[in-house]
Amino acid sequence: MKRIPTQVDIETAHNKIEKFIHRTPILTSSSINKIFGTILFFKCENFQKAGAFKMRGATNAILSLNNSELLNGVATHSSGNHAGALALAAQKLGVPSYIAMPNNAPKIKIKAVQSYEGNITFCNPTLEDREKTLIKIVQETSATFIHPYDDYRIITGQATCAKEIYEDVSTLDYLITPVGGGGLLSGSILSTQYLSASTKVIGAEPKGADDAYRSVRDNKIYPSVNPQTIADGLLTSLSDKTFNIIKNGVDQIIRVSEDSIEAAMYLIWERMKILVEPSSAIVLGVVMENPEIFKNKRVALILSGGNVSPKLI
Amino acid sequence: MKRIPTQVDIETAHNKIEKFIHRTPILTSSSINKIFGTILFFKCENFQKAGAFKMRGATNAILSLNNSELLNGVATHSSGNHAGALALAAQKLGVPSYIAMPNNAPKIKIKAVQSYEGNITFCNPTLEDREKTLIKIVQETSATFIHPYDDYRIITGQATCAKEIYEDVSTLDYLITPVGGGGLLSGSILSTQYLSASTKVIGAEPKGADDAYRSVRDNKIYPSVNPQTIADGLLTSLSDKTFNIIKNGVDQIIRVSEDSIEAAMYLIWERMKILVEPSSAIVLGVVMENPEIFKNKRVALILSGGNVSPKLI
Repeated sequence: MKRIPTQVDIETAHNKIEKFIHRTPILTSSSINKIFGTILFFKCENFQKAGAFKMRGATNAILSLNNSELLNGVATHSSGNHAGALALAAQKLGVPSYIAMPNNAPKIKIKAVQSYEGNITFCNPTLEDREKTLIKIVQETSATFIHPYDDYRIITGQATCAKEIYEDVSTLDYLITPVGGGGLLSGSILSTQYLSASTKVIGAEPKGADDAYRSVRDNKIYPSVNPQTIADGLLTSLSDKTFNIIKNGVDQIIRVSEDSIEAAMYLIWERMKILVEPSSAIVLGVVMENPEIFKNKRVALILSGGNVSPKLI
Repeated sequence: MKRIPTQVDIETAHNKIEKFIHRTPILTSSSINKIFGTILFFKCENFQKAGAFKMRGATNAILSLNNSELLNGVATHSSGNHAGALALAAQKLGVPSYIAMPNNAPKIKIKAVQSYEGNITFCNPTLEDREKTLIKIVQETSATFIHPYDDYRIITGQATCAKEIYEDVSTLDYLITPVGGGGLLSGSILSTQYLSASTKVIGAEPKGADDAYRSVRDNKIYPSVNPQTIADGLLTSLSDKTFNIIKNGVDQIIRVSEDSIEAAMYLIWERMKILVEPSSAIVLGVVMENPEIFKNKRVALILSGGNVSPKLI
């Protein structure tokens, strides 16, 4: 896929993947609405298969392969939700998956990939060794490399999440998504442009990992250097494809403190009785730190995943 | 209300309370089904208002009062979910509530009652002092005492939970509910007798607080003496009204170890991404310890509440 996904691309992807993913519910909380004087709609991708929206893009990417590519399977390097999602999507579609995982990856993520029959090759936890290991895997297996976000098939898949929101909730003033590598944010921007053009899209980023904020501000991609945040899904930097969509379509990227990320996570746990990971809770952190922007507004928030590190529970 | 609630009583109660409560969703988990080789339907009362099924009974009890009783309000003693539910139901219905709470009650429960405008009188954490304090409150305010379970209005309200299950899911082999004082279990038994007579109802009780198990076995009510369990909602003993319904209608009461209660709680958190309290997770503990009973069966489980002590998170 060589060009920015169109509305038809997103609709086609949604039709293809919908039997392999959950159509996740949208929850509301009158007590949280009361606290912030706003009307919030939480899209619960923490209930998605493999526990995160990543299942959408991974499934769409695999379904875009041709028959000989399918035979050889898919490969990626990841310590996080993309690994689990790609392994599960591959398992459901009957193709092999090969994952390079750093040897310090959380046990729970390793266990998840194994339970989805992913073939893990452990490597050192440096980007260099991850890439080297991946290249070796790809040479040996001829598997297709599926990048976690710098890939229009992935972006198209992630776009189906906002599409579902606009099908289920009308006249939204804002949509807030987390931003790490930008796959979810750029997909959400595309669906918004096609389906609800008056809705403003906001990216939520940790103050301690604000490369996307600076990239949009200065109109050039900054790498994510030594990010410091509890939001372990938001450590990566933007890529060419995601940056290009985001810089032209995002209303703003709002940075959130670590304290607010944690407070938002506990507030969601306490009031909504659902588990979200810090990288998800950050979207409520945006509202928490900027209630004046969202006063009496209708705001959708994507709770991107629920794979909480056992350390935090 | 002087007699065991009839089917019409439960239907009438449901009609009266339904605009004040959530019709909670029923969730399934293919990964948990796979682990135990069974088909489980989780009724999510952890998403109920005030975080527990107790809102059903409390609302029905208040709506059963006459006008002069409503003016004087309602009173109870509780350190747990009944306190919060009664205070919230009273607030929604515009009547005052008075709660005797032990001075060692969890801060989060105290905060909840306060946020629902309940008038708290603190007392010493002994049953004697709780009752003395309650009597003083009732004398001063003329409020109506609402017992947490030895009250047919409460039992009728709790029965609406199983009624919703039978409306939403067909041909269930088993229904499992926790048993503490027996309000939820006895209400569930009544709805089952009226709406799905072939379904067997099982009570789930901690091994370290198994007074209901022994009471049914020996056909006499044992008090709950020095209960030892993490399931802090299941410390109370049966009452005349709940025992009478349970002994005639329960298939069996199954005791669960502390290890299984904890393991079930973490499994629900991990796989379903929802927060449940130990007193709720115990229902999955029953399946965990007795998979042979539930092999290939259709089983509904009531997740009674989500008010997890912050200690456990």
